[in-house]
Amino acid sequence: MNSPHKPYIYDRSDREAERLDYQASKLARLLNHDTSYPPGSRVLEAACGVGAQTTILAKNSPGAEFVSIDISPESLVRAQLRVSHDGITNVTICQADVYHVPFGPESFDHIFVCFLLEHLPDPLLSIKTMKEILQPGGTITFIEGDHGSALFYPDSMEAHKVIDCLVQLQREMGGNALIGRELLHLMTDAGFTKVAVSSRIVYADGSSTENIEGVKNIFIAMVEVVRELAIARGLVDNETWEKGIRDLYRTTEQDGTFCYTFFKAVGNKES
Amino acid sequence: MNSPHKPYIYDRSDREAERLDYQASKLARLLNHDTSYPPGSRVLEAACGVGAQTTILAKNSPGAEFVSIDISPESLVRAQLRVSHDGITNVTICQADVYHVPFGPESFDHIFVCFLLEHLPDPLLSIKTMKEILQPGGTITFIEGDHGSALFYPDSMEAHKVIDCLVQLQREMGGNALIGRELLHLMTDAGFTKVAVSSRIVYADGSSTENIEGVKNIFIAMVEVVRELAIARGLVDNETWEKGIRDLYRTTEQDGTFCYTFFKAVGNKES
Repeated sequence: MNSPHKPYIYDRSDREAERLDYQASKLARLLNHDTSYPPGSRVLEAACGVGAQTTILAKNSPGAEFVSIDISPESLVRAQLRVSHDGITNVTICQADVYHVPFGPESFDHIFVCFLLEHLPDPLLSIKTMKEILQPGGTITFIEGDHGSALFYPDSMEAHKVIDCLVQLQREMGGNALIGRELLHLMTDAGFTKVAVSSRIVYADGSSTENIEGVKNIFIAMVEVVRELAIARGLVDNETWEKGIRDLYRTTEQDGTFCYTFFKAVGNKES
Repeated sequence: MNSPHKPYIYDRSDREAERLDYQASKLARLLNHDTSYPPGSRVLEAACGVGAQTTILAKNSPGAEFVSIDISPESLVRAQLRVSHDGITNVTICQADVYHVPFGPESFDHIFVCFLLEHLPDPLLSIKTMKEILQPGGTITFIEGDHGSALFYPDSMEAHKVIDCLVQLQREMGGNALIGRELLHLMTDAGFTKVAVSSRIVYADGSSTENIEGVKNIFIAMVEVVRELAIARGLVDNETWEKGIRDLYRTTEQDGTFCYTFFKAVGNKES
């Protein structure tokens, strides 16, 4: 395999698509309210997946032209359906690998990348590759989570353990579930300038049903996906796993709290 | 000793007062920009310490009358000097224990408490005591940090270890350095209603000198205070401590990142 691309840690089932859809709509305001591109600009959305962010981006910047790429044909079918269903006309969907993009140098005015770097064995290489196809003077935006930011009450050793299973499995597959905190140095290392990073924290407690549902449907559901793999690999025993997941759900009860932090970074390619 | 009050984990030296002063001015906007009380209202500031928050509160609500209490006479001298120096006339400074406040029932329209609960062996008792002196229909505000929220790059086992020393020492003295996440349930358990908690995250990286200075002068300085105690108690060896502190400072260099989250909760006493 020429590309250092590794299999996506999550499955691409209907349930996963639903989860990503839910995730995108809940988080869209928090993560993307300050992303819009001027009319006439050509924007690459790298790793669009099932198009969960695509429609939001396209609606925020109706005058921009988006090219949304992903490596998975199955995901792209869904992305295409979603874009068509929403009547969006400023998005072109293409299959492409972020390590080998089929675009010439300086093809785009801006690049937008959400929840990709965490899955890549060599995120710096990917960022450098994307830099090449960016116009001088253009911007690149990365959004990533960081599972190390999960903070909850009641606290639970087993809950931390099941989250650690996800972190460890992702690391073994070449990814990094703690990459949010690394955006500054990665982008700086890739040669971007005026890199500005902001943290976006989601706080959920029993006083806000909406946020609590997000914790269940986004975060805990994501952890639960690796159950069988984690147990099969001996990272955790069945009993600890069950208690960890139970304890995570416990944090979503009336008197519980749950926090998670995303990081958004925008950098410039010097002109 | 009738009161469950325990010794303050930090010293009350000039250096500590300077650190708290710095902390208050840096964090004031983040933590207190949305705290103001209507003219004519009578507000208790419990555990005002050296008055670091007092002057900010008083300036934000010039028409309110503040009573600011603390158990330490040494701190109160500083608080009084600061209030006088700033020409503030709507603050009365009194020595009092939060467990045995010398005020009658329902004496105050509002109560404000910042960075106190983390030091108390029985925070719930303290919250209930404060509720008694609050008018029905009044609000109570708590602001607390949570050392479990510290997230940084480069990550370091030893850096987490030195933070854990502080958490453990505070716990042994009856406090709780992870109390931020518990505000909802504590206030609900005390019978407050419509409790609204918000998280306030501080993100610092090399692109913002101001925030980085805050990490050094506030967070790392706070950890360093317990060095001798932690080593004397055998919680950590000298070498690990030195590396942990070095690694914390490393996160404040050009390509490092550091995050910390505070929690602010406002609850109502039903009328």
